[in-house]
Amino acid sequence: MSDPDLPLLSNPRSERVRQVAALGRRAARQRSGTFLVEGPQAVRELLGYAAGSARGLYLTAEAGERHRELVDAAVAAGRPVHRCTEPVLAAMADTGSPQGVLAVAERVDVPLARALDAVGEDGFAVVLTHVRDPGNAGTVLRGASAFGADAVLVSDASVDVHNPKVVRSTVGALFHLPVSVGTPVGELLAACRERGIRLLAADGSGETVLPDAGLTGRHAWVMGNEAWGLPPEVSSGCDARVRIPITRAESLNLAMAATVCLHASAAARSS
Amino acid sequence: MSDPDLPLLSNPRSERVRQVAALGRRAARQRSGTFLVEGPQAVRELLGYAAGSARGLYLTAEAGERHRELVDAAVAAGRPVHRCTEPVLAAMADTGSPQGVLAVAERVDVPLARALDAVGEDGFAVVLTHVRDPGNAGTVLRGASAFGADAVLVSDASVDVHNPKVVRSTVGALFHLPVSVGTPVGELLAACRERGIRLLAADGSGETVLPDAGLTGRHAWVMGNEAWGLPPEVSSGCDARVRIPITRAESLNLAMAATVCLHASAAARSS
Repeated sequence: MSDPDLPLLSNPRSERVRQVAALGRRAARQRSGTFLVEGPQAVRELLGYAAGSARGLYLTAEAGERHRELVDAAVAAGRPVHRCTEPVLAAMADTGSPQGVLAVAERVDVPLARALDAVGEDGFAVVLTHVRDPGNAGTVLRGASAFGADAVLVSDASVDVHNPKVVRSTVGALFHLPVSVGTPVGELLAACRERGIRLLAADGSGETVLPDAGLTGRHAWVMGNEAWGLPPEVSSGCDARVRIPITRAESLNLAMAATVCLHASAAARSS
Repeated sequence: MSDPDLPLLSNPRSERVRQVAALGRRAARQRSGTFLVEGPQAVRELLGYAAGSARGLYLTAEAGERHRELVDAAVAAGRPVHRCTEPVLAAMADTGSPQGVLAVAERVDVPLARALDAVGEDGFAVVLTHVRDPGNAGTVLRGASAFGADAVLVSDASVDVHNPKVVRSTVGALFHLPVSVGTPVGELLAACRERGIRLLAADGSGETVLPDAGLTGRHAWVMGNEAWGLPPEVSSGCDARVRIPITRAESLNLAMAATVCLHASAAARSS
């Protein structure tokens, strides 16, 4: 990062810094069509999977030394790289510790039809609705990618997947598979049904146990709020309500339930 | 909570309040042999599964109205109930929002031999070592209970399971199954081996994939640090190193990996 041609941003109160920092807020993300990608791992995935959508990379001198490969990848993709002072990076970041690296990227969601096109004949998708906690939503996205889901469909009544806390929890998975956002859940279910995608509600009081769920065909897991689950009309509108057999007086949190269901779909596909 | 016979604690600086608050620190927990149980759900599990170890229940007037069943359960078990002002409860609590209820309980861990005795012929256990994040440790305990593990063995090089953040993350599961703590991991593995318990290291780079892990016999999942996994000598000392098949450039966090492994053990036992 001793490159003399990299501009140095040193004023934490500059217009540019304020514009980047504003992306911590949903309204600014919607207005600009961009969002914050924080920390070396998420930025690496952005540059590896969606370099064309990177608007700019921001690094402190120290982070630039430590993550030379990120600078190289951004330069190779023709994306602007900005060197910043620590106070500038701290002022731009939403999280406490982006480890000296962040990027601004164009939003990554795709139209619903394109996400549905990605669901193969033996494929599966995830429908998220009424999920409010960014960490839970991010973990479900991470699991969807890890277990090979073809798409994630997020209803309008859910946390913004471009929220910096969601992006951080996905650890880059957001860039790995098609994600559609903003459709009312009723329309999401109807669109899945039209495409012959079987709808499985993840429901702790469901009548079908997971081993009987029949995961060999094209299907979508429908998952709801971390505290109270799916709205009854959503659950009853699915083809089956599936529960994970558990013992004792326990419950599973959303991320745990999603992990088990998505792993089961992956195992059914590979068997 | 209008019972005139319940003493009202109103001085947040009293000796008793300071003693309870001190249980947020490990040294005070070790010295007193007690720990904090915060929030109605964890307190309900304490009173339901281990009422004899409850030293006292503390509630605000409002929480006492809302959770009359907790007061009744404590009284039925002959445990002291204390009415507190909001400032007193806030001063005692480690978490920001225990919803007006907390209890002090005697530590719940059992000797290693007793935990191992609980592992049935077709049973399974969890060995945790070098786990540092309270939320992760608590989620693994919650999963262990939900999926019917017979015992959890926590090495000395791990977060304190009586840490209020662990207790909160277990959502009461800590009271549902035998947990042993404080043994060096090498001794834990040797003790399992002596009892004929097969040791399976959960290891993202393991040579055995989960479907080939052979989960029908008595076994223990050995799980390590959230960032770097198991120490190599621990992993190589196990009977198999098991990885969860995942796609793309993903990884799973500790809680996700544990959830999948424990669910697989539960499914193997019930099939």
